[in-house]
Amino acid sequence: MSCKPLAVALALTLSAASGALPAGAAEPTTPAKVPSMQELLDASPKSDWRTLDPDRTLYLQLPAGRVVIELAPGFAPQHVANIRTLAKEHYWDGLFVIRSQDNYVAQWGDPAEEDAKKKPIGSAKPKLPAEFERKATGVPFVRLPDSDGWAPEVGFSEGFPAARDPKSDTAWLAHCYGMVGAGRDVAADSSDGTSLYAVTGQSPRMLDRNITLVGRVVQGIELLSVLPRGTGPLGFYEKPEQYVPIAAATLASDVPAAERTPLELLRTDSKTFATVVESRRNRRDEWYKRPAGHIDLCNVPLPVRTPK
Amino acid sequence: MSCKPLAVALALTLSAASGALPAGAAEPTTPAKVPSMQELLDASPKSDWRTLDPDRTLYLQLPAGRVVIELAPGFAPQHVANIRTLAKEHYWDGLFVIRSQDNYVAQWGDPAEEDAKKKPIGSAKPKLPAEFERKATGVPFVRLPDSDGWAPEVGFSEGFPAARDPKSDTAWLAHCYGMVGAGRDVAADSSDGTSLYAVTGQSPRMLDRNITLVGRVVQGIELLSVLPRGTGPLGFYEKPEQYVPIAAATLASDVPAAERTPLELLRTDSKTFATVVESRRNRRDEWYKRPAGHIDLCNVPLPVRTPK
Repeated sequence: MSCKPLAVALALTLSAASGALPAGAAEPTTPAKVPSMQELLDASPKSDWRTLDPDRTLYLQLPAGRVVIELAPGFAPQHVANIRTLAKEHYWDGLFVIRSQDNYVAQWGDPAEEDAKKKPIGSAKPKLPAEFERKATGVPFVRLPDSDGWAPEVGFSEGFPAARDPKSDTAWLAHCYGMVGAGRDVAADSSDGTSLYAVTGQSPRMLDRNITLVGRVVQGIELLSVLPRGTGPLGFYEKPEQYVPIAAATLASDVPAAERTPLELLRTDSKTFATVVESRRNRRDEWYKRPAGHIDLCNVPLPVRTPK
Repeated sequence: MSCKPLAVALALTLSAASGALPAGAAEPTTPAKVPSMQELLDASPKSDWRTLDPDRTLYLQLPAGRVVIELAPGFAPQHVANIRTLAKEHYWDGLFVIRSQDNYVAQWGDPAEEDAKKKPIGSAKPKLPAEFERKATGVPFVRLPDSDGWAPEVGFSEGFPAARDPKSDTAWLAHCYGMVGAGRDVAADSSDGTSLYAVTGQSPRMLDRNITLVGRVVQGIELLSVLPRGTGPLGFYEKPEQYVPIAAATLASDVPAAERTPLELLRTDSKTFATVVESRRNRRDEWYKRPAGHIDLCNVPLPVRTPK
């Protein structure tokens, strides 16, 4: 068996956080004529795509390249405000990725454990409230019909995987691959946004509503997910020379327009997105013998493209 | 905020395929006195643990170390038989990991696409039946009470994440992190076990019952999950110099006893395992503010330890 057939065999899942868009399946006529996901996206109207707001886009510059993070002020307004302040004041510049735990998270911030040695946070707030959930009323929400064990309802809110509980009228972001959150201590309100993590493994949904999610990696998650796993407890790097340096973490709005990363994201409230989700829920191409009839929130692809 | 608090914050998820056992929570008395997962495991009887059968353990030797795979002849007898033949005849020795797709799979085998250049498979069978599922009757199955969107019932079968449909009396292995499968072409019966993949991202459960799973990585998945992502379509490496060489793939039974990797795996039909699962379904330690009341099949830790 050559690698070509396997390309077919495993072509049909798209990383939720990846910019790559392999072939996929859409609504069928006959099995042999199912359009690929690329064809589906190519045929979508321009209006089904959006660009990033540079004021809520964070660039994390690692040795291997730029990680692009879309911030979520709709769910974590105070954390995002602090992160914006920290970025503007160059807080992370010269700090490090200090942890990479397999099938879980990569985490970056200040490795200093003693307060006296810690990097000052400038004019950022030293204390923020927990922003684990918010009132659901007024939150845009495109619901998936699929069942979910972790929440009464799941779907997407302006590009972010999210969940909702109609009974309590609350909504929250979901810990899918590529989501970014703010580390905290035991106290619910002990995060300040200085130490951030990105999910690089099986969705740890048990963290939902237990920690504040602040955004999502929309490009470059593979720069974090391949980092050597730390050999200390919880995947922390044990030696300073293992730390991965952060050259800078900068808001896109503070970068000259010509140096920004141009991206277009498929709107999660678009018809094309609904078609993409259904094409993944029920694969109709000839490789799949048994369409699942289901999709998990964290298996839904979130297409990103570089404009031509 | 130091990295210590974050250690607490994110200590409480265990990679399902990792040998690491960070602190966790078990059944509580008072929140402050919840035993850690390590304490729970340390207190478990020896009889709750099993060792690997060397005849169905495959060692994949990569430059960074040894990946230990437990094969699943109960679900894929013909594929496992072929894999054993291929290993005994040194089929993979000198071949490569040829693909690493972010949030999906790493895949190894013969990079040759043309039949004339392909490595001969010796006395292995060139054609195997699809082994996507089997009759459920007679299959050991410890069921999880938790709902699952992909299958009527989910649980564990002798250490493997699995699913079951009582109506059709079928059972199958589930595509969780670290699971290993046999790549195939469009035809359901086109896999021969020469090209294998390991799941290194969000569980691609849509593949369940569409491709033959042959086992699970029980140690060393991080040697595969950190491999540089291929930049070709589907994460294939584009240049031969990017291939990751396989020094050897060998059955543990063909390795001298002193050179085997001694491991103990927590029995999934043990009382300790049930306690571990419940401790993860409802976190009772003081860090968690809202126990989920649910656990996904692919978030259940499968503890592995090196005997002292």
